[in-house]
Amino acid sequence: MSQPPGTARPGGRTAQNRAAVVEATLAELAERGYDQTTIESVALRAGVHKTTVYRRWRTKERLVAEALEATAEVQIEVPDTGDLALDLQTLARGVRAVLTSTVGSAAVRTLVSGAQSSPEVAQVLRTFWAGRLTKVIPIVERAVADGRLPPGTDSIELMKYLAAPLFHRVLVTAEPVNDKDADRAAAAVLAAARAGVFVVI
Amino acid sequence: MSQPPGTARPGGRTAQNRAAVVEATLAELAERGYDQTTIESVALRAGVHKTTVYRRWRTKERLVAEALEATAEVQIEVPDTGDLALDLQTLARGVRAVLTSTVGSAAVRTLVSGAQSSPEVAQVLRTFWAGRLTKVIPIVERAVADGRLPPGTDSIELMKYLAAPLFHRVLVTAEPVNDKDADRAAAAVLAAARAGVFVVI
Repeated sequence: MSQPPGTARPGGRTAQNRAAVVEATLAELAERGYDQTTIESVALRAGVHKTTVYRRWRTKERLVAEALEATAEVQIEVPDTGDLALDLQTLARGVRAVLTSTVGSAAVRTLVSGAQSSPEVAQVLRTFWAGRLTKVIPIVERAVADGRLPPGTDSIELMKYLAAPLFHRVLVTAEPVNDKDADRAAAAVLAAARAGVFVVI
Repeated sequence: MSQPPGTARPGGRTAQNRAAVVEATLAELAERGYDQTTIESVALRAGVHKTTVYRRWRTKERLVAEALEATAEVQIEVPDTGDLALDLQTLARGVRAVLTSTVGSAAVRTLVSGAQSSPEVAQVLRTFWAGRLTKVIPIVERAVADGRLPPGTDSIELMKYLAAPLFHRVLVTAEPVNDKDADRAAAAVLAAARAGVFVVI
């Protein structure tokens, strides 16, 4: 998120402050989790006065919500080779890349360290993941249309199964996630999809 | 974990205090997460003086570690019908039951709300999950031995894939987890295993 020296930031001082605060919020969330992130710690990190943050965002919930909405702009590539196995592999590697990025880590740690305590943050996180889950829809629809997957395959459920083993490594077993893991997740979900596990009647 | 009135607790006062403190620790973890759980809040909840807790456990890390080790005594049933699909389904339903129990919630919330900050707690959690992961080994070994799964199938990896979609619902999408979800996870992992996704060369 930081810019190389000499790069002009778009907008005036307000826009610059906003960008610095969003960046600092994501960094705090990724390093300290939701509970330990405060408006004061964000202001200190961003190099702005805390009243500037309070004036604009009012509450930690709104600050975190806006920072995560900015995160949502990080896109996962949607492959379109027509080779279902390869497309799912590319998608899984995209999920891996997001999960292991700073913004992805911030979203993941927020999710699990305090989202329950704020309906506003929980809603933003739902939107964040929903935006990513829809990436798989065109791939699955194409595969169903030309008979490579059974009719009625639920693309959203398939995408959750694609992502779940990678989240599991990050969140539960605390193992590194590499391309080999992404490829296995893609192969597993393809086998399950072909067997009709995601068919909704 | 609480006992009906009039039930004798095993052991003397020390054992009773220990049981009350362990129970209070799990309840605090499940409700407030690791970061917000303190020795003081546990003592208050358990109805013991905080110096009693400090004297015995010294640090929050040790207290949480011991409470989670007690959790590890909650067993998942290991099915043995010889029907692989049914055995995996029973196992998945067992994972679901643990995940949605108070002690399971405590372990899950601890895992994701502060385990990174304490090597001691992280180690206990690894042991906790490892103990559950091994449940699948005899089922998979039997299936490989009689040719229902490919030789070289990695039973631990299979078990992670069995559990991952259920954790994903609890942790990421905040959806309820019911037996239907467990059954789908079992069907997905069976299809992937048959396709050789978990074969380690």
